[in-house]
Amino acid sequence: MRNIKILIAYDGTAYSGWQRQKAPLTIQGLVEDKIAIMTNGAVTLHGAGRTDAGVHALGMPANFMTSSTIPCHGFIRGLNSLLPDDIRILRLEEVSKDFHARFSAHSKSYLYQVITSSVIMPTKRLYYTHFPGTFNFKAMNEALSCIIGEYDFSSFEAAGSRDPVANYGRGAVREIYRAQVMPLADDEGFTVQIHGDGFLRHMVRNIVGTLVDVGLGKKTIDKFAKILYARSRSKAGATAPACGLFLQEVFY
Amino acid sequence: MRNIKILIAYDGTAYSGWQRQKAPLTIQGLVEDKIAIMTNGAVTLHGAGRTDAGVHALGMPANFMTSSTIPCHGFIRGLNSLLPDDIRILRLEEVSKDFHARFSAHSKSYLYQVITSSVIMPTKRLYYTHFPGTFNFKAMNEALSCIIGEYDFSSFEAAGSRDPVANYGRGAVREIYRAQVMPLADDEGFTVQIHGDGFLRHMVRNIVGTLVDVGLGKKTIDKFAKILYARSRSKAGATAPACGLFLQEVFY
Repeated sequence: MRNIKILIAYDGTAYSGWQRQKAPLTIQGLVEDKIAIMTNGAVTLHGAGRTDAGVHALGMPANFMTSSTIPCHGFIRGLNSLLPDDIRILRLEEVSKDFHARFSAHSKSYLYQVITSSVIMPTKRLYYTHFPGTFNFKAMNEALSCIIGEYDFSSFEAAGSRDPVANYGRGAVREIYRAQVMPLADDEGFTVQIHGDGFLRHMVRNIVGTLVDVGLGKKTIDKFAKILYARSRSKAGATAPACGLFLQEVFY
Repeated sequence: MRNIKILIAYDGTAYSGWQRQKAPLTIQGLVEDKIAIMTNGAVTLHGAGRTDAGVHALGMPANFMTSSTIPCHGFIRGLNSLLPDDIRILRLEEVSKDFHARFSAHSKSYLYQVITSSVIMPTKRLYYTHFPGTFNFKAMNEALSCIIGEYDFSSFEAAGSRDPVANYGRGAVREIYRAQVMPLADDEGFTVQIHGDGFLRHMVRNIVGTLVDVGLGKKTIDKFAKILYARSRSKAGATAPACGLFLQEVFY
């Protein structure tokens, strides 16, 4: 058996998220089906994580075991010809048997894209969230500095959604290495980049939802910190929409 | 009667182009319908030009006459709430009676976006054309310098598609003021920007299709110039796909 690692980019707009489900179209389900066509047998694709409906990925690593002898360059070409153009295999390589896309991952980074001008250009609407207004980036970056380090992120976790496997016995504790707001080149918005050892369900979107309130002056930096320390979802802001979120990179 | 000028941005992916047609969904048709809802009467929207199916606009100016007394800020807000989010009204203002979006236009600029890396990121596929390969930008810019000035562009015109009204008695003669290839920031592709006093049907896409051959070394700069001087469509390269093309700006 060969252990094959693939790196997948996708536009999540048309999908019900990463994870295979019975009826709805998912990225895991579709890629597994196309691998099965090429290898003449069902496979299980292990993704580095899950993304929710409408969330995009610039690079989602995944692995699967196969007895197929198809060479790597043939595999990648074949999969890209079978897959729709909103899913692309960027890389494909054979790795050691003990590699597991989820359990071997050390950290992940996410990107959240926001347009702040009064009207959002139609050609950006699928990949940016529209929060019109004047944002205080300095306040937002100060707020984000509060989450750098190891904290219990219950306040930013989707209610009732804890994944016991992803838990690693740490509850809602995760470590954030870097979190930063950067203005877009033409002053029409900003991106939020967060790099950490793991993320709870909706964690980035809930942090961004609360951060937007800080940027607009609706919440103080002190309030943002208090929300984090409260370890209660009910204290935080709204969940920011899926379309602005990208799984950017997974580190091993 | 008031003469209202609007500036429209759209994602052309879902549309059969600008111009109103009987059955298919078009941008002109849809915007006219929404204005009619707001003003309780049919209107004719005059666009600065036409875009083909799948072509986008960063700013298509248009104008219409109305006896409605709705203030401009109410008009723009109302239209944007009635229109789908792949069409946005960026500006709306009352102008003098003699303004006509098409006949008053002095010049237009178009942008064509290309990804050249071996795989195109899914989140770019709707707004960039994928021409994988290694391109010689210097040769492409030299080729483009051949079209700057006043020429008969028959070689780059869609066959049998001359619009008698847009002709102004000039046949296929148009003047190009500026034409330039610029590499994308992260070396993953390039954009072509062309500014001229008018454009024939498919002219930008046909120039890009031939220019790509120059960039890949399949045609020489000399050959590109000979194609222009031949004034025959049969000499030029393929028509580049619609999805990479943007009407960028119309100047008055």
